[in-house]
Amino acid sequence: MVLFLYKFIMMRQLTNEEHGRLDVEGFKAADKNKIIIILDNIRSLNNIGSIFRSCDAFRIEKLILCGISTPPPHRDIHKSALGAELSVEWQYFEHTTDAIINLKSKGYHVFAVEQTTLTIPLNEFNAEGPLAFVFGHEIHGVSPEVLAVCEAAIEIPQFGTKHSLNVAVSVGILLWEIIR
Amino acid sequence: MVLFLYKFIMMRQLTNEEHGRLDVEGFKAADKNKIIIILDNIRSLNNIGSIFRSCDAFRIEKLILCGISTPPPHRDIHKSALGAELSVEWQYFEHTTDAIINLKSKGYHVFAVEQTTLTIPLNEFNAEGPLAFVFGHEIHGVSPEVLAVCEAAIEIPQFGTKHSLNVAVSVGILLWEIIR
Repeated sequence: MVLFLYKFIMMRQLTNEEHGRLDVEGFKAADKNKIIIILDNIRSLNNIGSIFRSCDAFRIEKLILCGISTPPPHRDIHKSALGAELSVEWQYFEHTTDAIINLKSKGYHVFAVEQTTLTIPLNEFNAEGPLAFVFGHEIHGVSPEVLAVCEAAIEIPQFGTKHSLNVAVSVGILLWEIIR
Repeated sequence: MVLFLYKFIMMRQLTNEEHGRLDVEGFKAADKNKIIIILDNIRSLNNIGSIFRSCDAFRIEKLILCGISTPPPHRDIHKSALGAELSVEWQYFEHTTDAIINLKSKGYHVFAVEQTTLTIPLNEFNAEGPLAFVFGHEIHGVSPEVLAVCEAAIEIPQFGTKHSLNVAVSVGILLWEIIR
């Protein structure tokens, strides 16, 4: 009972001030993790918003939206991004391959996150330097022509009945694993 | 060009058969990770469906839905769970505290995933034995009376402008970190 009361009093949620988060200007000025996330034709605005939020939380350099991936501003992105679309730097490319070739010319190592015939399990992945990771369409995944311009593919090992995790969940897991 | 062609031919997405996933009967019969996820009043059916999919992918023991967290069957859960609500064992409790007290009586260590005044960063978390993790409402988080019956709180370190990650993303990151 004493422990219960102690925890009830002591272990409380942080207030907004106690979180000590950056404001948008502080975020833009802060050092970033040298990581870029590339979305190859992500359909769901809810997923895109949620991915903006993860890119903000893990303070990465940039989110690149390609093809049918809708860029901000959009009401439905805002609903799940909760404003993270204003802090995270983003860019739009019509063709995912153009975005990748552009990054490679700047020295980025670009990996697809996809279950392929040649895949590195995420827990064995190890790379240096500026990194970019491509996530594909909710059903069709990363397209073959995009896979072909990536350095390699990384897979999140899975042990269930379904083929894959939700794409926003996959982005979150990858960012956590690289940054943790 | 040769490398491009090599990768175009060799590095292709796995076919459905090549994934070698379990069917629902195989999943139910398989050994599980001794982990239970508890949802304390999660509102979004999209989040619930996505969480079912992560529980399937990481083959955990059970998902417990509490309070306003809608249990299956529901069309909108099915839409994001893609059928994982049929493989993953689940249970419903009206009161989250009842679910936790029940698990504690069976020897589970129950942790809230919440940013509190007394929190263990996820990368420093280490525990043995059967584990359960409580995730709270999208806006209000884990409620004080639920926090009080948990052993401790775990937090996913975050470095951006927003207070928190999407709840389905948080579940995915936690499961990956425990199981990887």
